[in-house]
Amino acid sequence: MNVLIVYAHPEPRSLNGSLKEFSVKRLRDAGHAVQVSDLYAMNWKAALDAGDSVAHTTGDRFDPSRASKYAFENGLQSADIAAEQAKLKWADAVILQFPLWWFSMPAIMKGWVERVYAYGLAYGVGEHSDARWGDRYGEGNVAGKRAMLVVTTGGWESHYSPRGINGPIDDLLFPIQHGILYYPGFDVLPPFVVHRTSRIDEQKYVEVRNALGERLDNLWNTAPIPFRAQNGGDYRIPELTLKDDIAPGREGFGVHVK
Amino acid sequence: MNVLIVYAHPEPRSLNGSLKEFSVKRLRDAGHAVQVSDLYAMNWKAALDAGDSVAHTTGDRFDPSRASKYAFENGLQSADIAAEQAKLKWADAVILQFPLWWFSMPAIMKGWVERVYAYGLAYGVGEHSDARWGDRYGEGNVAGKRAMLVVTTGGWESHYSPRGINGPIDDLLFPIQHGILYYPGFDVLPPFVVHRTSRIDEQKYVEVRNALGERLDNLWNTAPIPFRAQNGGDYRIPELTLKDDIAPGREGFGVHVK
Repeated sequence: MNVLIVYAHPEPRSLNGSLKEFSVKRLRDAGHAVQVSDLYAMNWKAALDAGDSVAHTTGDRFDPSRASKYAFENGLQSADIAAEQAKLKWADAVILQFPLWWFSMPAIMKGWVERVYAYGLAYGVGEHSDARWGDRYGEGNVAGKRAMLVVTTGGWESHYSPRGINGPIDDLLFPIQHGILYYPGFDVLPPFVVHRTSRIDEQKYVEVRNALGERLDNLWNTAPIPFRAQNGGDYRIPELTLKDDIAPGREGFGVHVK
Repeated sequence: MNVLIVYAHPEPRSLNGSLKEFSVKRLRDAGHAVQVSDLYAMNWKAALDAGDSVAHTTGDRFDPSRASKYAFENGLQSADIAAEQAKLKWADAVILQFPLWWFSMPAIMKGWVERVYAYGLAYGVGEHSDARWGDRYGEGNVAGKRAMLVVTTGGWESHYSPRGINGPIDDLLFPIQHGILYYPGFDVLPPFVVHRTSRIDEQKYVEVRNALGERLDNLWNTAPIPFRAQNGGDYRIPELTLKDDIAPGREGFGVHVK
């Protein structure tokens, strides 16, 4: 199978750097093809702007989604964006690996999402009517592909627990796992999270590496997070609120998981 | 009073651009001093890297927080970072204004947070012991200042409602309001959110502008979101989980609001 690792850390000699190298080797040793988008090494342009389309004429009013649609449909996207989209298309599974900075992905990776996720590729896909609200949240152009987060944090596991002060890690990752990965169609596997990175000695590192290795070995047979499909009958359309008899009386991110 | 508006939109002739201009005028007309950090216009560098410290020697292993601490303490930060920190220090209130892209702030603004929020300024502040876990979440260097989000979305309000498919807007903004604003000490006001931006005609625009104007007029007397202070007795230290008798039996982001 083909695996794309999108990776964001500025220092190759970091825990993240080591784990990324480990993942590449583990997957290749198992017979998979691997490509890595090492965003810092690529000097990835983070800011979405008018320059992302070679069609944009200076002086025109820039509408991000309209410009993205036009450029995507007409082969007028900047080359770095088109190259990443080709990797996405090639991949059977995508791993996003990053340190949690201020409770989300690093800016450089957010910029990868914003620029690579073109209108027509990741959003604005499919029929929008009274019966359907586009092919998204369980349908879309990357349906059938798998995705997984590999995330490191400086804080303790308890700080990210259900009653921990930072908020539960699953909720912090929901905008990424549900909003960025499930939205265009990925099957999203449970995340691999390493906490308290400053206290990882050699013994602990071996444990972490082995646990990650096991997750990679099971990339194809791990059950995805059972998010609810938008057009599967659980939601009112076009309000897109859960029907009253689904998770009755409950609210929040958790209700979107079966 | 002094107000800093940190603003991220690539097109001045956008709804966001108009609302930003409106805010500047409204605040100045009320006698306040206003500075704007227009991140796209400034061509703000989004990616945190070794170049953020003029002390970094090529070839050294780059540790983001250690490098940030050293540069901040020794006046060795890059000039763009120091300039934004001076604005933060000057401000009595900070407004972050942005379009919600993929359920969070644009990459260029995330990069403002990552680079301007130095170790010693926004984190790594205060005593870390069995009794205290730093000055954060309600204490810290920006304590006494106010902050507010001004956010636009393309989706409908119902899509962001408590049972809406995107997740409740308050939960989507929690990593920013609690994790980025409350953490270093800001009093965080309820956000000003504009939904379904593609359907804003002239009449609706006047309504939005008036509502925003009212929020700006009341910037100094609006009650902040009552997040729980980390060192106020509600949390076990150092686990930083809520004590059993606080919001008993409940979990998730909501338990951190009184």
